[in-house]
Amino acid sequence: MSSQSPIPVVVNGAGGKMGLEVIKAVANAQDMVLLGAIDRNPKIQGEDIGELAGCGALEVPVMNDIQAILAMASQEKQTAVMVDFTHPDSIYENVRTAIAYGVRPVVGTTGLSPQQIQELADFADKASTGCLIIPNFSIGVILMQQAAIQAAKFFEHVEIIELHHNQKADAPSGTAIQTAQLLGELGKTFNPPSVTESEKISGARGCIADENIRIHSVRLPGYIAHQEIIFGAPGEIYLLRHDTTNRSCYMPGVLLAIRKILGLKSLVYGLEKIL
Amino acid sequence: MSSQSPIPVVVNGAGGKMGLEVIKAVANAQDMVLLGAIDRNPKIQGEDIGELAGCGALEVPVMNDIQAILAMASQEKQTAVMVDFTHPDSIYENVRTAIAYGVRPVVGTTGLSPQQIQELADFADKASTGCLIIPNFSIGVILMQQAAIQAAKFFEHVEIIELHHNQKADAPSGTAIQTAQLLGELGKTFNPPSVTESEKISGARGCIADENIRIHSVRLPGYIAHQEIIFGAPGEIYLLRHDTTNRSCYMPGVLLAIRKILGLKSLVYGLEKIL
Amino acid sequence: MSSQSPIPVVVNGAGGKMGLEVIKAVANAQDMVLLGAIDRNPKIQGEDIGELAGCGALEVPVMNDIQAILAMASQEKQTAVMVDFTHPDSIYENVRTAIAYGVRPVVGTTGLSPQQIQELADFADKASTGCLIIPNFSIGVILMQQAAIQAAKFFEHVEIIELHHNQKADAPSGTAIQTAQLLGELGKTFNPPSVTESEKISGARGCIADENIRIHSVRLPGYIAHQEIIFGAPGEIYLLRHDTTNRSCYMPGVLLAIRKILGLKSLVYGLEKIL
Amino acid sequence: MSSQSPIPVVVNGAGGKMGLEVIKAVANAQDMVLLGAIDRNPKIQGEDIGELAGCGALEVPVMNDIQAILAMASQEKQTAVMVDFTHPDSIYENVRTAIAYGVRPVVGTTGLSPQQIQELADFADKASTGCLIIPNFSIGVILMQQAAIQAAKFFEHVEIIELHHNQKADAPSGTAIQTAQLLGELGKTFNPPSVTESEKISGARGCIADENIRIHSVRLPGYIAHQEIIFGAPGEIYLLRHDTTNRSCYMPGVLLAIRKILGLKSLVYGLEKIL
Repeated sequence: MSSQSPIPVVVNGAGGKMGLEVIKAVANAQDMVLLGAIDRNPKIQGEDIGELAGCGALEVPVMNDIQAILAMASQEKQTAVMVDFTHPDSIYENVRTAIAYGVRPVVGTTGLSPQQIQELADFADKASTGCLIIPNFSIGVILMQQAAIQAAKFFEHVEIIELHHNQKADAPSGTAIQTAQLLGELGKTFNPPSVTESEKISGARGCIADENIRIHSVRLPGYIAHQEIIFGAPGEIYLLRHDTTNRSCYMPGVLLAIRKILGLKSLVYGLEKIL
Repeated sequence: MSSQSPIPVVVNGAGGKMGLEVIKAVANAQDMVLLGAIDRNPKIQGEDIGELAGCGALEVPVMNDIQAILAMASQEKQTAVMVDFTHPDSIYENVRTAIAYGVRPVVGTTGLSPQQIQELADFADKASTGCLIIPNFSIGVILMQQAAIQAAKFFEHVEIIELHHNQKADAPSGTAIQTAQLLGELGKTFNPPSVTESEKISGARGCIADENIRIHSVRLPGYIAHQEIIFGAPGEIYLLRHDTTNRSCYMPGVLLAIRKILGLKSLVYGLEKIL
Repeated sequence: MSSQSPIPVVVNGAGGKMGLEVIKAVANAQDMVLLGAIDRNPKIQGEDIGELAGCGALEVPVMNDIQAILAMASQEKQTAVMVDFTHPDSIYENVRTAIAYGVRPVVGTTGLSPQQIQELADFADKASTGCLIIPNFSIGVILMQQAAIQAAKFFEHVEIIELHHNQKADAPSGTAIQTAQLLGELGKTFNPPSVTESEKISGARGCIADENIRIHSVRLPGYIAHQEIIFGAPGEIYLLRHDTTNRSCYMPGVLLAIRKILGLKSLVYGLEKIL
Repeated sequence: MSSQSPIPVVVNGAGGKMGLEVIKAVANAQDMVLLGAIDRNPKIQGEDIGELAGCGALEVPVMNDIQAILAMASQEKQTAVMVDFTHPDSIYENVRTAIAYGVRPVVGTTGLSPQQIQELADFADKASTGCLIIPNFSIGVILMQQAAIQAAKFFEHVEIIELHHNQKADAPSGTAIQTAQLLGELGKTFNPPSVTESEKISGARGCIADENIRIHSVRLPGYIAHQEIIFGAPGEIYLLRHDTTNRSCYMPGVLLAIRKILGLKSLVYGLEKIL
């Protein structure tokens, strides 16, 4: 990649927890150059985003004018990319604006409705431009899910345990539910019963998600975000486990998305589509 | 122990799965001698119990006359011990009969009511004889529970996961419930909430046992009997796990009970009391 | 499969631990029929192999005449299969003999040299017949290895821990070495160092297998056969674990091989080729 | 504790990673008051240590004059405590100075020689003052080690796996070596061999620490600091695991030490002595 000009990158939501991680990752990527940092937090306007991210001055000030920055980005010789970790209330407009300026959006912000996604897909089609919507940037989680899909072709029995910190209010986790859905799409009904089960205390056997797959949610301080998918058959257990210990684990997925979007001509949903 | 005469041992329920394990263990213990094998299964009467247990001929035939065998055992110079893995319907009588003959009972059979246990305790007291009732012979499980009690003095947050084969009908397991009870006896209320939790699918967060301790029960072929006790605090997780992979793991507890009962003068309940 | 006639199966080494498991599995498979049981153990000649396997009388006596049984199998309308779990010293001849009789060999016996395998491949080619050599019948282990190959494309860092009972004399296990080889074939060098490591006690960091992948071998009573492949990257761990708790776990692989060999016309090595 | 006056605390090495955690913990402890923050880093002199620690202004400026701050602390009505996370080159003097001023030292800095520790013990004895030297402030690690000591009385077989980030240069970890020492002090020789082992690749079986206990050291990015102590016996595995995911896990041990030192009259080494 050294012979090519670097990819210009704009980060929207640059001052948030994920945004600051993206700033560091882009600053350290040799094939990218940080062009702009957008954030609506009034306290950090004008500050050097590199200093805020703890990776030294980058001479890129935080600004709150998405139009101005996208206009600047659209002047670059190489197609620019906007990484967006902002808010559900602004993400739809952000994506339309970026596409209008010919800047390609990599979206980590959640909260788009299926209808909004469809509209953005149509919009991207008309513009023949790539647009990536990625609910989970962890390559490790995608690998675990894909390995589970392979395993589910041979195993009849599977349960999921997800373990998170006790600040997480909802259970089960979105990733666990999605994992059960992915296995359910194989068209099998898992866990045929061999005895009539009874719960002596209600809830012991967890909740039942798609296709009769049980999910158990543990909440304890000390955990961050962890998931186990456990397949069982007579005489064997096959277990897949992913531990997230730090937001930095999402950055390989973000950088991959920035590189891959340049070759896309339409909206693509999910990191697994570009691995 | 070589200078002492070996402990005479009678096994009641000798032809069952646990009984056969006990036969092997006693046959291999240098400080014990197998005196008799009782079983009511008509198909194996008169057969050499050593052959049935797969440890070679022991010249001890299976018999169904508990009185005759206990009478014989009572003639031994060294006090004899009866290990009982039979049935709830006979265990109370078995224990009384053994004590009447001066043979000390080590009971692995479950199903005695609290009142029956009290009566047997009174009976043993009058006879000034030891009697051991052991619902779980696994030293490993006891060690795990004792370690959990120590940990629970310093941790506020704990959950339990137990994993068993999918032939097990009830959930949660007796050991998991008992573990929660043991922690509950410390007088703490565990797992003070830090957010208002909500289950998107009912049962996700497991069941709530004593003192607000959650238990999650996994049932999959490939598992045998496993339990995790997980303590969490900011920045750390402390996990205790016990895996039973084979009935042989109960034998050190059985042999320990046989040796310890000779020094007892009353009924004792639970392996933890004699460790 | 109900409309087709069942596959006739001969088991060579029927009286061994794996052979008896295969007998049970074939007896329970609705699309197979057990035709013969070969074993050279003089003590069990003529006995009903079903009784020995603990699955009830099958009216198939143990015999030691491989030629006679293969001749009989070759008369079946449906092509017959011979499953072989015998000895390194006889396996080469067993395979040639089976092919000569038109019976298709599924080989679980290890110990064939690369040259012998090549010769058998040529022999099978000339006969246009399928021949399966399967060093590991565990579908779970193959799935774990295939998942590891996928993960290794995205992770730079990986180590392997294998845990076995303390009767296992050699370390590391064949499966662990083979796993490292499979990852090594990707052409990456794993685990680029970030510091200069030093062992305060020699051996702490395990052994170094193919492509700089470390293997750690634990040997403890209580374990059977277990392996973990652990991938690490900043902020995340992705772990694959397989536990073998019983020989029965190999049977789905054996039955799959019996079914798949009927469609093959040459020698195939490794269960992964027919998944 | 509300009726008592709070414990005055001085933090030496306040600007370091551990120091800043201690600042936060003391600031949040209702029975303590932060009196002074000492650090020799010229860049942060005079800054509010609360701001640096991210817990809001505490009106305690960083200073580099240990004598002045200890003199101030010695004027408090309630006995003051100095928590020291500094450097091996200054720790000996720091402790002597604190004791001279009547301030009680809680030492997390490592690097004191056995002779220095003896001298400080004599010094503390003469002053009839408490002094705590704590190489590991993790209560969870201590609990794990104490549970292991209990288990080691009943199990003959044990191995240790420790897993750290790949920035850690030395192996095995100090905690793993210390754990083996603690088990070794029981006077047993662990892991009697049942077969003659051979390493096909050197190092596979890990390193041999005290009393024949094997340690395996894994180094991968994504890990922080983790240890497993695995006990095995026929038919069972008993595993203890501690995960450190954040420095905050040491704070309960630091606060406990601050509270306990007020009741001591001599030097005490190790957190386990005051649990």
